[in-house]
Amino acid sequence: MNDLFLRACLGQPVERTPVWIMRQAGRYLPEYRAVREKHSFWQMCTVPEVCTEVTLQPVDRIGVDAAILFSDILVPLVAMGVEIDFTPAPVMGRTLRTEASIDSLRPADDSPVFGQVADAIRMLRRELSGRVPLIGFAGAPFTLATYAACGGGSRSQSEIRTMMFGAPKLAHGLLRRLTDAVIASLRSQIAAGVQAIQLFDSWAGILSAEDYEAFALPYAREVLVAVKSADPSIPRIYFAPGASSLLDRIGTVGAEVTGIDWRIPLSRAREILGDRTAVQGNLDPGVLLGSPEVIEEKVVRILAEARGARGHVMNLGHGILPETPVENAAAFVEAVRRHSQR
Amino acid sequence: MNDLFLRACLGQPVERTPVWIMRQAGRYLPEYRAVREKHSFWQMCTVPEVCTEVTLQPVDRIGVDAAILFSDILVPLVAMGVEIDFTPAPVMGRTLRTEASIDSLRPADDSPVFGQVADAIRMLRRELSGRVPLIGFAGAPFTLATYAACGGGSRSQSEIRTMMFGAPKLAHGLLRRLTDAVIASLRSQIAAGVQAIQLFDSWAGILSAEDYEAFALPYAREVLVAVKSADPSIPRIYFAPGASSLLDRIGTVGAEVTGIDWRIPLSRAREILGDRTAVQGNLDPGVLLGSPEVIEEKVVRILAEARGARGHVMNLGHGILPETPVENAAAFVEAVRRHSQR
Repeated sequence: MNDLFLRACLGQPVERTPVWIMRQAGRYLPEYRAVREKHSFWQMCTVPEVCTEVTLQPVDRIGVDAAILFSDILVPLVAMGVEIDFTPAPVMGRTLRTEASIDSLRPADDSPVFGQVADAIRMLRRELSGRVPLIGFAGAPFTLATYAACGGGSRSQSEIRTMMFGAPKLAHGLLRRLTDAVIASLRSQIAAGVQAIQLFDSWAGILSAEDYEAFALPYAREVLVAVKSADPSIPRIYFAPGASSLLDRIGTVGAEVTGIDWRIPLSRAREILGDRTAVQGNLDPGVLLGSPEVIEEKVVRILAEARGARGHVMNLGHGILPETPVENAAAFVEAVRRHSQR
Repeated sequence: MNDLFLRACLGQPVERTPVWIMRQAGRYLPEYRAVREKHSFWQMCTVPEVCTEVTLQPVDRIGVDAAILFSDILVPLVAMGVEIDFTPAPVMGRTLRTEASIDSLRPADDSPVFGQVADAIRMLRRELSGRVPLIGFAGAPFTLATYAACGGGSRSQSEIRTMMFGAPKLAHGLLRRLTDAVIASLRSQIAAGVQAIQLFDSWAGILSAEDYEAFALPYAREVLVAVKSADPSIPRIYFAPGASSLLDRIGTVGAEVTGIDWRIPLSRAREILGDRTAVQGNLDPGVLLGSPEVIEEKVVRILAEARGARGHVMNLGHGILPETPVENAAAFVEAVRRHSQR
């Protein structure tokens, strides 16, 4: 089995740097678009055969060193009974910003959604048969709270900010419920067989350091502790894009691996984090819209900046852009393989 | 004259901390919405009487220590002959990503738009009659290039990134032309009477440090040098939101004042910048959606973090949100006045 990814996450020696790509099963792949034409986004998340097919596509096509379950960071919200229309940008059937709406949420634990996802994970592990490890994931509590309060994506996140700064107890009540649901989701994924997890705190970057410590960090930490107690051996990755000014705090969240976006040099991120965690990243996804020469040049630079790290998993600093030529995604993976041989 | 703002920008002693608010003439003000119902956004930028009216509204209503010309960061593009529909989110009549389209741009220097804006500035100076200083502004070259390549706002800025990483010479050609236009715009504003300028590099935060140095920093620096030679006495503010990981580079751009967004503590920003510049910011605009107590608490904290700075201008870390209650904007200004008396 190619376990480079798992070893790099855990700070163990590797023969070369492992690489995967956020949103690697996505619209830049023609075979993904073909599946998407026949199935809704939600079917792709919950029908095991379809989920398995799209999850495996980038492993077959561009040779990444890890598969990531095709799913959505908002699955825990669905499991709590919130209807979400994935277009794929999420639009929620209702918002959660009153005590009554929060009280009406179902406990996620026994949701049939988790069962469907678990079936997909078991099928995936069989199909992968040890080729590469499988990553599970969920949105972090603060990120789910932002979606829940705003009813979907939002330009200025006014609703969650009104809660935080006008009704902090209500915000903490929502975060409490969401933390339980995220833990239930990840425990279920681990029981079904994922071999690493990534916690996406996609909205943490809207917070000041002080508010990150109040509204995001403790809940994310609690999730990671629960994952550890579910299975002490699997690596936990925490990724908050656009939040490099929070990296000193992020370093205390308790993950084995810190995801780094492209806005901060990897060498600088390592200075801030110290040797506490391995790092994952951090090529600007926009570079994959450019020439193969620029891609190679930037990969070489990132590998140099990662040298001596506790562990390094190469990745983009954010999801791959739908406009990316497939050959450029492949050139990225190939450049990492070629230039990182020990 | 209340020149607290100008003195703080230049690092001179002040009796209390001056305060203004980005987008202070904006939708949160009922009197602004009333004007907006009768006039297009572009009329508000170019008809001197209307421009003067909305520019003065927040000075009268909430007592800020500086007025900022009601205008748009994209005025230099309009002056080059690009049609833009401001809804107010800009939608451009054409994109600039081929050599031919860039060659077809007019030199901005003699644009009648600059004359209209200059008329508004002269009227504003008369109406203000020394009450508070008047700030002029423009978008920085990289930010204008992003709008120009993408044809307006953009989620992933694919077009400018395709240029940067696939056709860098073309990108630099566009940046060259835009730099000249931004300089022409600011020179014209200064000749008409603005007493400080702010250069908004709103998209710089999408860049890695390396690419910021290649595509944004040198052009912004050139603009600031040209402003200095037009009038050595007026303070220059540079503000790149969401770019705190670039602050060490930003500190070398050559501005008297660095705008700081709320994602990085002001004390940390000062450590990175050293004593080279004064700082402006940095309350999370979302805080103004909360309670007066939280607003006051956060203002006190920011004032404490600013203590000992070369100079401090209080502001939000980004534009005020349209949903903001007017009384909260006033409470912000009032809290700064009350807690910053020397």
